[in-house]
Amino acid sequence: MALMEITVVPIGTGSTSVGEYVVATQRILKDMGLAYELTDMGTEVEGDMELLMDVARQLHESAFSKGAARVYTVIKIDDRRDKVVHLGQKTGSVLERLD
Amino acid sequence: MALMEITVVPIGTGSTSVGEYVVATQRILKDMGLAYELTDMGTEVEGDMELLMDVARQLHESAFSKGAARVYTVIKIDDRRDKVVHLGQKTGSVLERLD
Amino acid sequence: MALMEITVVPIGTGSTSVGEYVVATQRILKDMGLAYELTDMGTEVEGDMELLMDVARQLHESAFSKGAARVYTVIKIDDRRDKVVHLGQKTGSVLERLD
Amino acid sequence: MALMEITVVPIGTGSTSVGEYVVATQRILKDMGLAYELTDMGTEVEGDMELLMDVARQLHESAFSKGAARVYTVIKIDDRRDKVVHLGQKTGSVLERLD
Repeated sequence: MALMEITVVPIGTGSTSVGEYVVATQRILKDMGLAYELTDMGTEVEGDMELLMDVARQLHESAFSKGAARVYTVIKIDDRRDKVVHLGQKTGSVLERLD
Repeated sequence: MALMEITVVPIGTGSTSVGEYVVATQRILKDMGLAYELTDMGTEVEGDMELLMDVARQLHESAFSKGAARVYTVIKIDDRRDKVVHLGQKTGSVLERLD
Repeated sequence: MALMEITVVPIGTGSTSVGEYVVATQRILKDMGLAYELTDMGTEVEGDMELLMDVARQLHESAFSKGAARVYTVIKIDDRRDKVVHLGQKTGSVLERLD
Repeated sequence: MALMEITVVPIGTGSTSVGEYVVATQRILKDMGLAYELTDMGTEVEGDMELLMDVARQLHESAFSKGAARVYTVIKIDDRRDKVVHLGQKTGSVLERLD
């Protein structure tokens, strides 16, 4: 099971605000019924690599659908095959050790 | 005011677990008294660019102090000068629009 | 047409050297007959988003095939729909203006 | 010795072209007299971590100097302390093995 973090940035839109683009990505994730979490710097999604690449493609395309002519997307994938890891577990494990 | 997300990955440690390295970064941030937030894919920190680059250097070095001989660090910075943005505000603004 | 840069990092292999993992990714790209370019910090590939996500999945999987139990992959995509951009053109255009 | 790759993306400029921003970063690097290499997806720079963070700050600031009000910067650092690695060596080592 892998965790992906994705950030989709529209370029050349004429506005410094990109909130509506982020809203569009969250609607897609909600409709797909996936486990995901929005943070201030991206969206984290849980799944296997094939699913995650399909999700990445859809979120990237959503920015073009909303009118962008150039889109810059950054993706990080952390994939462990020796252990099942769900969203929230890595953070939880670190926070416990900090107490 | 900028937001930074940073992920510090030790390479060649012989263990797939990197939790102790993440714990070390959180201790540094706590001691510095900064606004930060741990997520499953990195740590978000708030500050101006000069501070953030100093934080990045310290978190990166902490992995060597813990014994890594090679460290791979990924940093994303979102810096607005037209508006003051604090940690949590971007997420909050998107979640409101999703209701 | 989009350009992708991808870096595949095996975690916990016990060696600071990852060259053999990079070699494996280059073999896949060569076999696929794509336009790509190896740099010191990743591999750049040219194609449409659907192809690029399939390439990313294959390169990511190759690290598991070579024995890694945890793989960290970073992907950046720069996708323009207002203009056809091939590998080498962006660099060429900047270098011309620097003369 | 570490290698850094940095990409500086201006947001909300109203133009899908960012070439002039890239030109500005190259001029700074040339004036600093550093070893660097422009690729289609970023600029690679060689140095120790303290220098690299200073370079990152300057390149990031250059986009504001050119008029951007929001700047998104992505940085990857690959830092080995068990071996001296210069720009071009990692690529060279992989290409040799592919022959």
